[in-house]
Amino acid sequence: METPQKVRWMQDIFGEYQRYFTFLKKVARHEFRKSWFTRISTPILEKAELFERWVWEGTDIISKEMYTFKDRKWRDLVLKPESTAWVMRAYLENFIDEPQPVYLYYIEPHFRYERPQKWRYRQHYQIGAEIIGEIDPVLDAKMIYMWQSILDSIGLKWKYTLKLNTVWTQKEREKYIEALRDFFSNKKQHLDETDLFRLEVNPLRILDSKNPDTKELIKFAPKITDYLKKESKEYYESVKEYLDIIKVEYEEDHTLVRWFDYYSHTVWEFVDWSGRTQDTFCWGWRYDELSKLLWHKNAVPAVWFWMWAERLIESTMESWVQLKNKDKIHLYFIQLGDDAKKILLPLNIEARDKWLNSLLSLGTPSLKIQMKKANKINARFVAIVGIMEARSGICQLKDMETGTQVEVKIENLLSHVIEKIWDENLDFYSPTKDFIIVEPKEEIL
Amino acid sequence: METPQKVRWMQDIFGEYQRYFTFLKKVARHEFRKSWFTRISTPILEKAELFERWVWEGTDIISKEMYTFKDRKWRDLVLKPESTAWVMRAYLENFIDEPQPVYLYYIEPHFRYERPQKWRYRQHYQIGAEIIGEIDPVLDAKMIYMWQSILDSIGLKWKYTLKLNTVWTQKEREKYIEALRDFFSNKKQHLDETDLFRLEVNPLRILDSKNPDTKELIKFAPKITDYLKKESKEYYESVKEYLDIIKVEYEEDHTLVRWFDYYSHTVWEFVDWSGRTQDTFCWGWRYDELSKLLWHKNAVPAVWFWMWAERLIESTMESWVQLKNKDKIHLYFIQLGDDAKKILLPLNIEARDKWLNSLLSLGTPSLKIQMKKANKINARFVAIVGIMEARSGICQLKDMETGTQVEVKIENLLSHVIEKIWDENLDFYSPTKDFIIVEPKEEIL
Repeated sequence: METPQKVRWMQDIFGEYQRYFTFLKKVARHEFRKSWFTRISTPILEKAELFERWVWEGTDIISKEMYTFKDRKWRDLVLKPESTAWVMRAYLENFIDEPQPVYLYYIEPHFRYERPQKWRYRQHYQIGAEIIGEIDPVLDAKMIYMWQSILDSIGLKWKYTLKLNTVWTQKEREKYIEALRDFFSNKKQHLDETDLFRLEVNPLRILDSKNPDTKELIKFAPKITDYLKKESKEYYESVKEYLDIIKVEYEEDHTLVRWFDYYSHTVWEFVDWSGRTQDTFCWGWRYDELSKLLWHKNAVPAVWFWMWAERLIESTMESWVQLKNKDKIHLYFIQLGDDAKKILLPLNIEARDKWLNSLLSLGTPSLKIQMKKANKINARFVAIVGIMEARSGICQLKDMETGTQVEVKIENLLSHVIEKIWDENLDFYSPTKDFIIVEPKEEIL
Repeated sequence: METPQKVRWMQDIFGEYQRYFTFLKKVARHEFRKSWFTRISTPILEKAELFERWVWEGTDIISKEMYTFKDRKWRDLVLKPESTAWVMRAYLENFIDEPQPVYLYYIEPHFRYERPQKWRYRQHYQIGAEIIGEIDPVLDAKMIYMWQSILDSIGLKWKYTLKLNTVWTQKEREKYIEALRDFFSNKKQHLDETDLFRLEVNPLRILDSKNPDTKELIKFAPKITDYLKKESKEYYESVKEYLDIIKVEYEEDHTLVRWFDYYSHTVWEFVDWSGRTQDTFCWGWRYDELSKLLWHKNAVPAVWFWMWAERLIESTMESWVQLKNKDKIHLYFIQLGDDAKKILLPLNIEARDKWLNSLLSLGTPSLKIQMKKANKINARFVAIVGIMEARSGICQLKDMETGTQVEVKIENLLSHVIEKIWDENLDFYSPTKDFIIVEPKEEIL
């Protein structure tokens, strides 16, 4: 009988992959904090009704790509496929009376039951940020800048192009869609099956067509610019002006049309130009109508940006980003037998308390295997303690850099090593420094 | 129509709660790293077959407390209720050929469909660590010490008692269980319904009984010590000896019996003695037989420790732990109108690049509301820029500590503030310092 396997297209994250993931999360959290965003974690399970408000005709997600199921009371639940509607739900419950706008970010597992492709796992992590509660072109520019900083900081500085567009307001778009429908309805004989379907459900998506014949037709189709009000144009111009001021380079791309009805104004993507495919690193857009879909009485403006973490992790792993090993071991303790362990266990704790990166090899008693390990982890010093050393209180200390070996009293071992590696190589970091623990007084003494 | 609500007994984590959660995660990650543990993230969804190996008669989890469902291909899946079997599955897939033992930790959402109680949410976070691949009492002692360090570092130093016991090996236990069954079978008339059920499925659990009559009976029941082999006793004595050496205080509690068949030797709990209830903070035990339940040919020894994060978060929030606010704002920019935004947006970025904690108020244009915010976040300096200031290049800078106000050239604003708050108050942290980005050479230029 075979041991159980994990679900296909889901992955265990550990080792190198986990280290790059940690790097990405650290950078993202730091940039978010610098811009005054705070973290929110919403439940992974939500009621399907929330989800049904959010998606509708024109997208395949609901029908095929979701993990939906019924709980024991036969209520429909869904594992979150992304977080816009989820965060908006949480905003309406918790943040509506706070000073606006509200800045939130999240780093969470998400689920898609979709055809497996490179970096698209069925369980994956999304990192996203939202500014909710106000509409202002400067917020869109700020959001774009923040994400550019993240991409730059993880080492993808030379790898992307920012593509920018506007999808205007819902009202303007509706009129434009009507015009498109009229235009293409007269030319059905030139459309393939996919585009005929798009004509049916959402003619805007025809502008996305890869069919060369359709691409020719599109050149003669009505232009959105003819359906605009002044305010929308000014909004878009203003976003661009802010981006220019803070020196963010972008390419305008008017084929960048997203098809959710609640989108408005600015949409953008950071596109990977380094690889074989013109793949997208991450996306963002403004949405000002979503709250109404969730039955809220008012439209709550918001701007959103997000990435699939795996996409970025795999890009940094393939690129020129190397992670420093912060955990260089200064002193590696090799023990031979129980008596040695009894001496080294407390000594290892003491070493750590003195900020020395030390490691006590436990388990395997063979000297050879333990020396191999010491080499593999690139330890600077190795102390070897067996029964004799435990009795005499003197042990061998090997300097792995110079290859020299000296006898040292075990009680002097730590000060000896600290002297050799110098104070400045010690890592004095402790998270408890960030926090005040008010020591208890009378109440417990 | 009401806006959608979240699933009951699940929670949004944000604000203060999220800050304490961050604190806990930081401390735990730091202690794990110090002890050479590396992180693993296993999928939240696993096949039900894995889960069915892991639990069986004698526990209620399978029947009532799980989120199980079928995917589109009618395969049985389960949302993980805890991670022992999950991590063992991942170990067998990925780590079996690595140098042993393997040190792993995780911080992950888990799911229980159970009766709601304080801190027991249906989606909750578990933090756990495992040492897999070798058996040695010193590993158990090391594990206990590490978790004690975590509890101490989050400020619960005076709040817990460590309770310790052994459940011996499976073979010894089987004989003992038989003896218990014989003993209680003659005394059925003195047992209540619960204990009669326990007698049926697992007589060991009778030792956990709260019934006063049963408690009396237990005094005369067979003792596990009569069924022991020398090795098991020595193992337990050795764990205690190591704990004594590293000065970990514990109370032996022989009623601490866990009822999974794959447990062996050491079991322990950190018990909260500060509250109304003698509630458990976190648990640990050794298990050496689980891998066989997963159809693996050999027993893989392992020791495990874990906590429900919410339990600890809520304890630290209720205790004397105060979190420092690392994000003290040095300079808060108030803008009045678009011209001001255009000047302040790049200035805010420049300030951040100079390690100044600065924040630009975007959105709300009212001076009053923005000043209120500046007070609320306890900003040290506030710069106010309106149309006039944008034109003249001179603005008002208010020192919120002294209440004084001066005129400063906008171009000198940053150097002025940096001079006032001193270099040593700047936060020079950047995660990119932990990483080397090898700049691209010929290949892309």
